[in-house]
Amino acid sequence: MIEKTMQTIGMNARRASAALNLSSGDTRNAALLAAAAAIRKHSNKILAANAIDMAAGKERGLSGAMLDRLLLDADRIEAMSKGLETVAVMHDPLGRVLDEWDRPNGLNIKRVSVPLGVIGIIYESRPNVTADAAALCLKSGNAAILRGGSESFNSSQAIYQCLREGMTTAGIDPDAVQMVPTTDRAAVGYMLSSMGEWIDVVVPRGGKSLIKRVQDEARVPVIGHLEGICHVYLHHAADTDMARDIVLNAKMRRTGICGSAETVLIDRAALERLLPVVASALTDAGCEIRGDDAVCALLPAAVEATEEDWSTEYLDAIISIRAVDDIEQAIRHIANFGSGHTECIVTADDAAAERFFRDVDSAILLQNASTQFADGGEFGMGAEIGIATGRVHARGPVGADQLTSYKYVVRGSGQVRP
Amino acid sequence: MIEKTMQTIGMNARRASAALNLSSGDTRNAALLAAAAAIRKHSNKILAANAIDMAAGKERGLSGAMLDRLLLDADRIEAMSKGLETVAVMHDPLGRVLDEWDRPNGLNIKRVSVPLGVIGIIYESRPNVTADAAALCLKSGNAAILRGGSESFNSSQAIYQCLREGMTTAGIDPDAVQMVPTTDRAAVGYMLSSMGEWIDVVVPRGGKSLIKRVQDEARVPVIGHLEGICHVYLHHAADTDMARDIVLNAKMRRTGICGSAETVLIDRAALERLLPVVASALTDAGCEIRGDDAVCALLPAAVEATEEDWSTEYLDAIISIRAVDDIEQAIRHIANFGSGHTECIVTADDAAAERFFRDVDSAILLQNASTQFADGGEFGMGAEIGIATGRVHARGPVGADQLTSYKYVVRGSGQVRP
Repeated sequence: MIEKTMQTIGMNARRASAALNLSSGDTRNAALLAAAAAIRKHSNKILAANAIDMAAGKERGLSGAMLDRLLLDADRIEAMSKGLETVAVMHDPLGRVLDEWDRPNGLNIKRVSVPLGVIGIIYESRPNVTADAAALCLKSGNAAILRGGSESFNSSQAIYQCLREGMTTAGIDPDAVQMVPTTDRAAVGYMLSSMGEWIDVVVPRGGKSLIKRVQDEARVPVIGHLEGICHVYLHHAADTDMARDIVLNAKMRRTGICGSAETVLIDRAALERLLPVVASALTDAGCEIRGDDAVCALLPAAVEATEEDWSTEYLDAIISIRAVDDIEQAIRHIANFGSGHTECIVTADDAAAERFFRDVDSAILLQNASTQFADGGEFGMGAEIGIATGRVHARGPVGADQLTSYKYVVRGSGQVRP
Repeated sequence: MIEKTMQTIGMNARRASAALNLSSGDTRNAALLAAAAAIRKHSNKILAANAIDMAAGKERGLSGAMLDRLLLDADRIEAMSKGLETVAVMHDPLGRVLDEWDRPNGLNIKRVSVPLGVIGIIYESRPNVTADAAALCLKSGNAAILRGGSESFNSSQAIYQCLREGMTTAGIDPDAVQMVPTTDRAAVGYMLSSMGEWIDVVVPRGGKSLIKRVQDEARVPVIGHLEGICHVYLHHAADTDMARDIVLNAKMRRTGICGSAETVLIDRAALERLLPVVASALTDAGCEIRGDDAVCALLPAAVEATEEDWSTEYLDAIISIRAVDDIEQAIRHIANFGSGHTECIVTADDAAAERFFRDVDSAILLQNASTQFADGGEFGMGAEIGIATGRVHARGPVGADQLTSYKYVVRGSGQVRP
């Protein structure tokens, strides 16, 4: 039964993808704007659907954090519409000449961006991802097959109907974005294992267990992201106030996102100068500190960190702090415990920053800026579908440009190969 | 037993990859040049090892084509050395600033190329691939785990010892390139299924059955290529001589490579002008022609093509020819029967070429040039590990640049996120 449903979805997606490939950027943008308008117009329907999900979620005893992700209100619905409009005004990711060169034999070679094809998006119960993910796929000319979390099924369906309305208004085959019409978990397994003919790439968006399941089961290419165990390294040449502001923001602006900092490393030579200022800002903001011996010696209120702390993504108002002998030890700590996501060095010494940039192998490296800038919007990509920590295809924020492939266009005048 | 061997190889590769990541382009090039010298120096050892493989291959009844691929002689050994030297003088694929922009908040963002990490190369019994693949991996700062076909085991081992010598001479950890020291086929399964911790991407290089096995079993990302069912479309505005020269070269220069043409499509309006000239050149060169009704009506000697011919990669001196009503039918034929590899349009009408370029979804599209230019060397990449027909990560010829990932380097002055 699920097989038949999914095969039909796959065939529809492939057909819509071929048509989308030939659509103009203006048409795709018109669909995004019409979808934004439809979301505004049908906001009461979306709120009513969300109320059903929220009631069921409370009954099932979902956690406060999960219910908060599930909740839609007028502001969040407006943010979804605005998000679609933001993506609509971004540059066209398709048809860009990424590279061009001439060969000695007179051949002119261009590398031109094209859609990936059909993208499967598997996400958790955040209804806004339905609009965000569909927007990036449409913008980049890809057909999308969306499979959201079951707790948000009604909300996502209501949003999805608005997307279809937008596509129809703009004259795009509405099957360019499809939503799996069932909460049956077997649909996810089927997408991952048996739809290689229809799905070109799967993008999982969610927590550790979702990503792990996708990576274990997928027989199609995956653009995934893992957890973000992000570090802020306070080099001995760090300005005190800047160190404090960056650590505070990197940890506490939002603790639940993958770009929030989990560990601070501080050069031993500057520990007495930096630690008290940084720690008191964190403590005042309600953050628990777990420190190594050197840190606890200066901060009697700190909890003793265990080995496990260094590899824990708290996603909460908790931070681990460790003294390091020098930049080399900091780099080694990050190599041992980091997740390859985002790391920051605070220093006025550009040579130290260069070394950090060269030797730390993470998707995003920052000097003197908060790790919370690890975000497609903050990078100027308009929106993101996630932060990739894999190395194949895309790495770092995945926006519309990262959802493209390319083809080579070669112009000759009768050349044959000797 | 195989598990322990492979785990050790994986750990060694990861260690060597970290060191290679920090090596300079000059050091990596020195290793390539030293390996080229070592291959020349030890050519007698390589020939002796190859003689063992050839004798065993004959005894096992390998086909003439397989024995030809397996055979090494002085010229082929020299070509391997030259190949390493060609890769050595190419630009450094690492540390390139692929993109750079400033944000309104003053952040400067650079996207910089970095190695993929550890690449598993699984290939058939072509000993030269041992040198070619290792060269591209080394050049791009990637550690390589090579698993060649069992029939070429001794030849590949002898070449591999020269690669190790080159790396050692240049001061590179020789485990940057490792060869699986057994012909046990279980090693391939283990690489594909159980080495995700150590291998970042697998590149299969070989025929259909190898690629299919890798795609079915892989739990790690794959940069694969499928067959090449390449088309030459003779538009009604094609020059007769150019059409003849291109078809002849595209089919007959080498029939056994994936970029050789398998099907010619000819506009019905120009069939009587083009077909006799093209067909007689093909026939004179010893090529069998299988045609549709219109083609057979003009060429009594042609074989009637069956439906199967249109989706067959002959890799031999056979070609299928079909008359089409117009460019639209040609594009549809390619969409139905092509493999997304390489297609050519012969036309003096640039608008028709533009349409072909836009509407045909293949990795490489050419106007007025032979499909046999589908090759990394011909594209100016120095060498290639294959032609990718997938859409994720790399598409088309895969050279050293395509074996890289990137990281973002962000410079700030104390920015925090609002």
